[in-house]
Amino acid sequence: MNQQLSIVKIGGNIIENEVELLKFLTLFSKLEGSKILVHGGGKKANHILEKMGISPKMVNGRRITDLESLDVAIMVYGGLTNKKIVAQLQALNCNAIGMSGADANAIQAHKRSVKEIDYGFAGDIDGVSNNTLNSILELGLTPVFCALTHDQKGQLLNTNADTIASELAIGMSKNFETTLYYCFELNGVLRDFEDKTSVIKKIDSASYANLISDGIIADGMLPKMHNCFHALNNGVKEVRMGNLALFEKENTNYTRLVL
Amino acid sequence: MNQQLSIVKIGGNIIENEVELLKFLTLFSKLEGSKILVHGGGKKANHILEKMGISPKMVNGRRITDLESLDVAIMVYGGLTNKKIVAQLQALNCNAIGMSGADANAIQAHKRSVKEIDYGFAGDIDGVSNNTLNSILELGLTPVFCALTHDQKGQLLNTNADTIASELAIGMSKNFETTLYYCFELNGVLRDFEDKTSVIKKIDSASYANLISDGIIADGMLPKMHNCFHALNNGVKEVRMGNLALFEKENTNYTRLVL
Repeated sequence: MNQQLSIVKIGGNIIENEVELLKFLTLFSKLEGSKILVHGGGKKANHILEKMGISPKMVNGRRITDLESLDVAIMVYGGLTNKKIVAQLQALNCNAIGMSGADANAIQAHKRSVKEIDYGFAGDIDGVSNNTLNSILELGLTPVFCALTHDQKGQLLNTNADTIASELAIGMSKNFETTLYYCFELNGVLRDFEDKTSVIKKIDSASYANLISDGIIADGMLPKMHNCFHALNNGVKEVRMGNLALFEKENTNYTRLVL
Repeated sequence: MNQQLSIVKIGGNIIENEVELLKFLTLFSKLEGSKILVHGGGKKANHILEKMGISPKMVNGRRITDLESLDVAIMVYGGLTNKKIVAQLQALNCNAIGMSGADANAIQAHKRSVKEIDYGFAGDIDGVSNNTLNSILELGLTPVFCALTHDQKGQLLNTNADTIASELAIGMSKNFETTLYYCFELNGVLRDFEDKTSVIKKIDSASYANLISDGIIADGMLPKMHNCFHALNNGVKEVRMGNLALFEKENTNYTRLVL
C-alpha cells in the first residue's frame, strides 16, 4: 500500500474568521502523515479592490480577471492570506511552505480560451509536478497552496481553488493513497438544505446520479461534486466534505464520497 | 572544496524597471551552480499604501512598520513582486520557488526591541535553516526570498533585504563556498561619487578601514559595507557589488570584497 496523503481545501468563510481559522489550522497541524493545504481567496480581495478604487469587472454576472484584479489576487491570495497561514502553521510546529502553481513549477495551466465569455487571466490546469511535490513532502514540509497557477511563459493565472485541490489530489495519487477534504460551512452534503443535520453520510457513483436527478445536488454544489467525482475517477481514494468537525477523530457526521 | 553557491540581492531600482528586471533575470537564470535570489521591495508598496489611503508612518524621519504597512509589505513583497519574479524565472527555465523567512521556517527572527524608537513589526534575524535550504537546493530549486521573516510564534516581520542576503550567505557557508552579490544601480563602490567610472575594484579589511577614515565610504554605503564584512567575517568567501554587468562573464568592472 502507498503512503497516505491528505489534501485539504478550505474556503473563504474559514479564512475570513480569525477564530475559525486558528481552530482549523490547529486541527490541520495535528493531521498525521503527509498533507497539503489549499486555500481559496475570500472577500479580502474585494475589500482591497474597493480600497484601491478598482471596481470588479463582471460580464453576464460572472467575475472577470483583468490585469488589475489579477494583481490584487496575487497580492491577497499569494501574499497576505498565504504567508499569514504559513506563519501561523509554523507557530503550531507544522513546517509549512507557501506556494502558488508557479513555485517549483507545481501546477501548469493555460489561459482559458475565449468562447462566449473572455474570463481574462483565468487558468485551466494542464498538469501537476507530482515528483517535485513528492520530494518537498519527503523533506517534511507541508505545502500551502493559494489559488494561482502559471502558464510556464511568465503569466500567473487566477484558478479555482476547488479545482486546484482536485487536480493536486489526482496528480499526487500516482505516489500516494490520497484523501481529498473539502472543508466548508456545512456539516456535509445535505438531503434537505433547510435541515442542517440532514447530512448524506455516503455518496457513490450510483447515488450521485440519483441525487442529481432528484434535484438534491443542484446549483453551487454541482461543480463541487463534479470536481469530487472527477478526482475519484482519476485515482483519488476518497473525498470527504464537511465543516471543521471533519478533522475531529470521533466525528462521523460528514459526507464520504467514493466510486 | 565545497560546492559553490551564489546569493544575489537586487534592489528596488531593478524591480521597478520591467526591462532591467527581465535583463537581470535572464542573466541570473544562466548563473551556473546553486543560487538564491533576494529581492527588496521598491516603491510599489508606497504606491499601494497611497492608493489605499494609508500614510506611511514616520518617526524621526525613519519608516515605522505598523500593522497596516506590514500587511501591505506582505501583499507587495511576499505576493506581487515575489510571485511575478518566480513566474518569469520559470519562463526562463529556472525552477524558482518563492519564499519568505516563514516558509520552511527558513529565517527565524524577533521583533526589534524598542529603545529610542519603536520600529514596529521590523525583524532582526536570529538564524537560518541552512539544512532545509540545502535540501531545497538539492532538489534543483532556486529559492527567491522576499524581505520578510517570522518570529516562529505566528508573526511575520519586515526585514532589511541586504541583511537577509548576508545572513543567508553566512548560514549557507556551513554547506557551501558562498559568493554574495549586491546588485544595484552603480558599477561598484566608487572612489569619487561624481565619477561613475571610479570603481574601486578590490576592498579588503585594511583598505576598508582606510576608505571609512578617508570618508569615501559614507552615508548609505556604510551599513551596506558593514553587512558585507560581517558576511566575510562569518564564512562567506567573497562579496561582489555592482550593476547588472556583475553577471556578464567578460566584465571585471565591479567591486570585489574579501577579508
